[in-house]
Amino acid sequence: MSNKYTSNLHIEKAKTSKIKDVDFDNLNFGRTFTDHMFICDYVNGEWQQPKIIPYQAMSMDPSARVFHYGQAVFEGMKAYKDDDGGVFLFRPKENFNRINKSCARLAMPEFPENYFFEGLTTLLNLDKDWIQPGIGNSLYLRPFAIATDSAIAAAPSDSYRFMIICSPAKAYYKGTVKVLIAEEFSRSANGGVGFAKAAGNYAAQFYPTSLAQKKGYQQVIWTDADTHTFLEEAGTMNVFFRINDTLITAPISDRILDGVTRKSLIQLAKDNNIECEVRPIKVSEIVEASKNGTLKEIFGAGTAAVISPIEGFEYKETYYELPEIGDHSYSSILKNNMLNIQHNLAEDKNGWRFEVK
Amino acid sequence: MSNKYTSNLHIEKAKTSKIKDVDFDNLNFGRTFTDHMFICDYVNGEWQQPKIIPYQAMSMDPSARVFHYGQAVFEGMKAYKDDDGGVFLFRPKENFNRINKSCARLAMPEFPENYFFEGLTTLLNLDKDWIQPGIGNSLYLRPFAIATDSAIAAAPSDSYRFMIICSPAKAYYKGTVKVLIAEEFSRSANGGVGFAKAAGNYAAQFYPTSLAQKKGYQQVIWTDADTHTFLEEAGTMNVFFRINDTLITAPISDRILDGVTRKSLIQLAKDNNIECEVRPIKVSEIVEASKNGTLKEIFGAGTAAVISPIEGFEYKETYYELPEIGDHSYSSILKNNMLNIQHNLAEDKNGWRFEVK
Repeated sequence: MSNKYTSNLHIEKAKTSKIKDVDFDNLNFGRTFTDHMFICDYVNGEWQQPKIIPYQAMSMDPSARVFHYGQAVFEGMKAYKDDDGGVFLFRPKENFNRINKSCARLAMPEFPENYFFEGLTTLLNLDKDWIQPGIGNSLYLRPFAIATDSAIAAAPSDSYRFMIICSPAKAYYKGTVKVLIAEEFSRSANGGVGFAKAAGNYAAQFYPTSLAQKKGYQQVIWTDADTHTFLEEAGTMNVFFRINDTLITAPISDRILDGVTRKSLIQLAKDNNIECEVRPIKVSEIVEASKNGTLKEIFGAGTAAVISPIEGFEYKETYYELPEIGDHSYSSILKNNMLNIQHNLAEDKNGWRFEVK
Repeated sequence: MSNKYTSNLHIEKAKTSKIKDVDFDNLNFGRTFTDHMFICDYVNGEWQQPKIIPYQAMSMDPSARVFHYGQAVFEGMKAYKDDDGGVFLFRPKENFNRINKSCARLAMPEFPENYFFEGLTTLLNLDKDWIQPGIGNSLYLRPFAIATDSAIAAAPSDSYRFMIICSPAKAYYKGTVKVLIAEEFSRSANGGVGFAKAAGNYAAQFYPTSLAQKKGYQQVIWTDADTHTFLEEAGTMNVFFRINDTLITAPISDRILDGVTRKSLIQLAKDNNIECEVRPIKVSEIVEASKNGTLKEIFGAGTAAVISPIEGFEYKETYYELPEIGDHSYSSILKNNMLNIQHNLAEDKNGWRFEVK
């Protein structure tokens, strides 16, 4: 826990709740927000008093640096509720550590740990009615930080805002997805910011992804910018490949996000006696494995989707379909294990659950 | 000129001007804004009525996609005033075309040409008292576009805002600068967004630049992310090298911004009978040229600074100092020629000046 920052959270409760207007069976991901939000400003070299206030729009100067120079980072987390009303987070310290790594890479000040956890747990207690129990339901949590200084010089901001907003969610992806393997466009450079959850990393993927979508693919699997021969990640998901009975996923690097779901699945594979190799993986290896029938599964892994099984992929104008495996797939085994841990329905031998009290 | 968009600019004038509070001799770049701003929203697949209104803060939802996914692009332009009160832009069509290229790469809608030029010229007529005559004075213009949709799904926004804000400026860089040549960090990837004026490109440079600044360098010259052997650009400036009597600058690519100042200087060099080669240039070539005394000049070129002469550079822990050349330097010749054209003090044989009427 951080030290110089004393706990001094200000709370202003919403007068009425919007929850009665929400149709929890028909949620559009990321468009509905709870009654409260967490907000903390950085001014004059110090994080100011953190606050929880009713969710509301905020006033921004048109010259705020976030609009011009993209100093913005975020995290994605989820809160789960069990049938007894207990509220749980999943490895929140990982997200806390990562947003500060992202901040450091974007020349933004790191956020104090006690502010983060006090803000997050207080917010969840206030808005816990928004968390629906049951597998597939969650409250998606979006901590983020933006540069607020009113100045259009191309330099780091003097002031920042750290916020947490919350949006009730069902599963992010419906069903399976088909992916296009990148041959021309790239997501990140060696020595760049690909490992960070930097806002600009996402906008950069939208256009190539829209081209893939026109061809019938929902996502792009990015390859290394130098040679387009090594598989990296899918932009909002890390990617796992199963060849015969071995899972393979790319090592993290300065180009690849250190996904919390990714690292949890590597451990869960071990817990389930599934061999998992973390090593560079060539596109040619999965093409060959698909041709000779040893490529059994590909799936994406991320907080929003947990696991997204991939139905097939296109590479160099050829489509490769994955076999149907069904309930015995590694993706099903690992996803169920993961969801059961997250929802307090399975033993948590790695100590990942964090009960919100 | 665009067609489907009829001119329908709404103007709301500021009741009073802030100009009397401005000390034009002591301007801090990008912190003072004129009385008005241009604003146009994109909703339901259409650009709505463009408006000029008093400069003011705006209301933004915390979930606005620009904060989370970095869909934001901008331009930098300047307006100049001659001693007769004439107001001039410099190749504004280049900036207009480029912001639309940036928009396309970030999956943002292109902005109509007649909206842009009507908005810009009307804004300049309203705020022309903010443009001071004289070399070195200008009104810096910042067209930009941001994603405004209130939704945190990682996908292109449905709504956008295009704005132009204006800030009176003196010369951007004071004196000469020393630069560090990048050996580890990178600005952009092949197949990425380095050629676009995407907000996220700038935030990504701040941390490596801050490390350079700690070593006494004001800027970084970026190299290719693959090998760090080819010189690219300086992030806010393209870069020119003079070896013997020849100027050399890197070709534009998907990693390097197609700078308006850069392309104008290439033409001005020709107009001044200075040989200018556009070709890949290795770090080793300028190191060698520095050692054997043939490296005469390095300078940055961009709208903000016009030309920034570089005093020396560090590469692999060795500092290389450039010789002092003085008024006969190519940077002086070209900068003076450029400023004189911009300020309506020299013949404009290339037809670059655009008088605002």
